[in-house]
Amino acid sequence: MRIVILGCGRLGAHLARQLDHEGHSVAVIDRNGEAFARLGSDFRGTMILGTGIDQDILRRAGIEQADAFVAVTNGDNTNAMASEIVKLVFKVPKVVARLYDPVREDTYHTLGLMETVCPTVIGSDKIREIVIGDGRKQ
Amino acid sequence: MRIVILGCGRLGAHLARQLDHEGHSVAVIDRNGEAFARLGSDFRGTMILGTGIDQDILRRAGIEQADAFVAVTNGDNTNAMASEIVKLVFKVPKVVARLYDPVREDTYHTLGLMETVCPTVIGSDKIREIVIGDGRKQ
Repeated sequence: MRIVILGCGRLGAHLARQLDHEGHSVAVIDRNGEAFARLGSDFRGTMILGTGIDQDILRRAGIEQADAFVAVTNGDNTNAMASEIVKLVFKVPKVVARLYDPVREDTYHTLGLMETVCPTVIGSDKIREIVIGDGRKQ
Repeated sequence: MRIVILGCGRLGAHLARQLDHEGHSVAVIDRNGEAFARLGSDFRGTMILGTGIDQDILRRAGIEQADAFVAVTNGDNTNAMASEIVKLVFKVPKVVARLYDPVREDTYHTLGLMETVCPTVIGSDKIREIVIGDGRKQ
């Protein structure tokens, strides 16, 4: 698959490396050049310096041929806005945005434009599962 | 169950509210009093102002009778250190720490003192599952 990832923080870099190792074609966008160091020297994908709200930057990352777009910058607004542009302008089939705010996640999820992943909710669910385990109370 | 949560950020508050609603006895520690607003007015648990590395604060939160301790401040070091204290000094049976750094998570997980949850890894796995889905490549 051809996948464009916006945001080369810990999550973006981790995901990019994994998908690259699996043989997918990966392009990563970040506005901070130093962030690309997280990808490691064996990363075979493309790195594009710039902001993901800029349509020229998205084109340079190959958004017009992309099968999927993933927005994982640290800003919920940026992730949501970039995802909307990619879905509406470039008609990329699969769009996923990380949104830290559960309320905002719920709103965008309801709009149905993009898939959303909320680390708050999945982290909380995971911890609850470890703590409660068998579901007993008190 | 009696559960002490360190850190009343988005994740800590979300988890505290859920466990409280399920009938568990919950105490939340944060060094910033304003953070407790996230718990909402219907929260029936205890709020303790202070740092979770302070053993007196932990005692005031009821750590000596706790069945579980969850460390979810924004600092990996704080979460790891507080979890070690709780496990070694107070012998709490179930201790879970959120660690953002996957490398550090791996180290602590290997030490076996505490269970660890890494939002980077679980977030990445979740997004990969949405994007790749059926597992096909290229």
